Amino acid sequence: MSMLDRWMDELALIGGGGNGVNRFAWTPELMSACQWLVDRLREIGLTSEIDAAGNVVGQWIPADGDSSRGKAVLVGSHLDTVPNGGRFDGTLGVLSALEAIRRLKEEGFRPHRPLWIAAFNDEEGARFDTSMFGSTAFVGDDLTSLKDRVDVHGVRLDDAMAQRGFDFAEIPKASRIDEIGCYLEMHIEQGPRMQAMHLDTAVVSAIVGIAGYRVALRGQTNHAGTTPMAERQDALAGASRVVLALRDAALAAGDVTANVGRIEVRPGGTNVVPGEAVFFIDIRTANPDKFTTLDGTVRDTVASIAADERLNVEVTSTYAHAPVPMDAALQDLLAHEMTAQGLAWTSLTSGAGHDAQVLAQHVPTGMLFVPSDGGISHAPQEFTSPEQREPGVRVLTNAVRTLLLRESAGRDSARPNDTT
Amino acid sequence: MSMLDRWMDELALIGGGGNGVNRFAWTPELMSACQWLVDRLREIGLTSEIDAAGNVVGQWIPADGDSSRGKAVLVGSHLDTVPNGGRFDGTLGVLSALEAIRRLKEEGFRPHRPLWIAAFNDEEGARFDTSMFGSTAFVGDDLTSLKDRVDVHGVRLDDAMAQRGFDFAEIPKASRIDEIGCYLEMHIEQGPRMQAMHLDTAVVSAIVGIAGYRVALRGQTNHAGTTPMAERQDALAGASRVVLALRDAALAAGDVTANVGRIEVRPGGTNVVPGEAVFFIDIRTANPDKFTTLDGTVRDTVASIAADERLNVEVTSTYAHAPVPMDAALQDLLAHEMTAQGLAWTSLTSGAGHDAQVLAQHVPTGMLFVPSDGGISHAPQEFTSPEQREPGVRVLTNAVRTLLLRESAGRDSARPNDTT
Repeated sequence: MSMLDRWMDELALIGGGGNGVNRFAWTPELMSACQWLVDRLREIGLTSEIDAAGNVVGQWIPADGDSSRGKAVLVGSHLDTVPNGGRFDGTLGVLSALEAIRRLKEEGFRPHRPLWIAAFNDEEGARFDTSMFGSTAFVGDDLTSLKDRVDVHGVRLDDAMAQRGFDFAEIPKASRIDEIGCYLEMHIEQGPRMQAMHLDTAVVSAIVGIAGYRVALRGQTNHAGTTPMAERQDALAGASRVVLALRDAALAAGDVTANVGRIEVRPGGTNVVPGEAVFFIDIRTANPDKFTTLDGTVRDTVASIAADERLNVEVTSTYAHAPVPMDAALQDLLAHEMTAQGLAWTSLTSGAGHDAQVLAQHVPTGMLFVPSDGGISHAPQEFTSPEQREPGVRVLTNAVRTLLLRESAGRDSARPNDTT
Repeated sequence: MSMLDRWMDELALIGGGGNGVNRFAWTPELMSACQWLVDRLREIGLTSEIDAAGNVVGQWIPADGDSSRGKAVLVGSHLDTVPNGGRFDGTLGVLSALEAIRRLKEEGFRPHRPLWIAAFNDEEGARFDTSMFGSTAFVGDDLTSLKDRVDVHGVRLDDAMAQRGFDFAEIPKASRIDEIGCYLEMHIEQGPRMQAMHLDTAVVSAIVGIAGYRVALRGQTNHAGTTPMAERQDALAGASRVVLALRDAALAAGDVTANVGRIEVRPGGTNVVPGEAVFFIDIRTANPDKFTTLDGTVRDTVASIAADERLNVEVTSTYAHAPVPMDAALQDLLAHEMTAQGLAWTSLTSGAGHDAQVLAQHVPTGMLFVPSDGGISHAPQEFTSPEQREPGVRVLTNAVRTLLLRESAGRDSARPNDTT
């Protein structure tokens, strides 16, 4: 068993075991996983810290002690999961970065510039609907508006942080983007395309735009047996129409996905007409033109159904990330490594959101995919075999080696001359 | 403020206060309400006990000590509520019975036969989907199949009973129907018909048949951004279609109601295609012919949608109570009292289920309604004013007085000659 495989097994037990893996922002499980990573980084000789936003940030400082000779190459992903999630989403990216560094250390490689590794906090946003929380803090964007978010138990985000010894007011201290030259992330595809095309790896060309909404529909709680059908103001009936209308709209568009994965109905009695339904919409497209119209589509759909069902409606945007192209030079670099290794590869858009889309707003960013068995992700059955991981790990290792040989005083620019 | 009004206010605080009233089977709140009733019964001179099924049963034994001179007149309703329920559903029936007895005692009335009062446990079945639990035990029907039911926290019914000092195995001891001659229940209408017709009271002619189902749909949990729309097996999309299909079927039938008031979607991530949806259907009709076809309608609707959506399906019947006509003689008695008092009244079917439908399978049973303001019930806004309650309390008191003057060795038979 390789070191990477052993690490994968160890991490899968933290917050895992029963029905998938559960590691959410500011929970003991995710903090344990972060501490586990800090210990592994120390073992391979990196310094590290858990920053003010809960990101694990490790640093490989060049041996001659001069870390100022250029901005860092950053490699990473995330360790948090969706509810009952898989072992590979995010985790494989962090551990592949760790394995790449371990291999470079083992071969006696001497970097010409700093190498950083990050496990970004709360990429999934499963607990507070705050996706990309850690990477957003890392690039220095404002998170103040999230302070009052509460989880399903009514715990506030700032209180959840305080429970783990973190201070919401200190999040800006996590901003380190000025020290970064470029960002690389390896990830599982999380979809069926690569396996269908028999590919080893893929270069990500762009990441889809993602918009999230919380919708509250309010009608009238009433008796399920005595209230005439035509007089009901049934919030679940309204929500059901929204679920199906958004699915129809996405199917019609072709390059849009729409999902309702969380719903709560109140008061929640079998014999009670539900007066309230709160649900969350996730809608995506890689098409920049369509992305600008998604917000209108969601709001119009919800409003017209609510009016027809005589329901009050409240629609709140929970996140909005525009489609982001990956850096052309880094795409070239990754493609070059894949071709050099004789891999079957192609260029794909990512239907999933990633920390890379946040980093890409600030530094040249590249991503590569390895396949997901059966296309299944965000589920306990998520699987990528050791044989399916290794080509990606080799590409990542070689790309990082190439980037570390560049002595870059500034950020890695698009299509630089020294790209091999 | 009348004694009844004060009692209503006192009980509304037990499990109430915030957002409606919450008193569920085998909870401290419902047990407190039962103990409160035991104390009130003692104050007005009745003996009482909380029986093996959690019913409060009070007895007014005729003063000359001979309680064997006939079967008892039983009056009552229930004290448990739906989640965030109203103050009047069930409670007004119990307290009107208490008030009727108080008035009869105050006027020095001497009954010729025993009078019993019951607050049946768990009429709503809100916690374990075990509606009419207490009255079913009281009439001696078998409840063994409910033993393994669990609440939303995974607590088993028998363990929940044990926590309050009750033993599931002893439920048969609550069977007392052989000592009962007839049953009367006053209740709020819980619908808008009486207010629309400007009625003071109503005689219930029949109680609707009610069928309940738990449905579990299982598809494939997956990533909400990377799984192509056409390839999803989305359990919430399937559930949404069932919600709307049953509503359409009920609207088309005219005399059927259908409701989905509880739904849980798993794993419950915004960015996760929901692989599982568990929801509860409540479907009703007073039409005996249609009631026999409801089961097929529900199962066929769910099965065909599940097949179309490529979902696995599991449908479990949680309750089934056939439509029940009320006793003709007791309808006459109640109608006579209403007419004698100059009330505006009519005869109505009950769209809600009641303990009366369980009792009616064994003894002559009668019900009367008072109006629900705005037709709202099973909600905190449930309201019936003191002025709207009083005519019903007077009818109930007079009907009970009439029945207590009958010296009945057996059960009260249909249209007996001595009905005034």
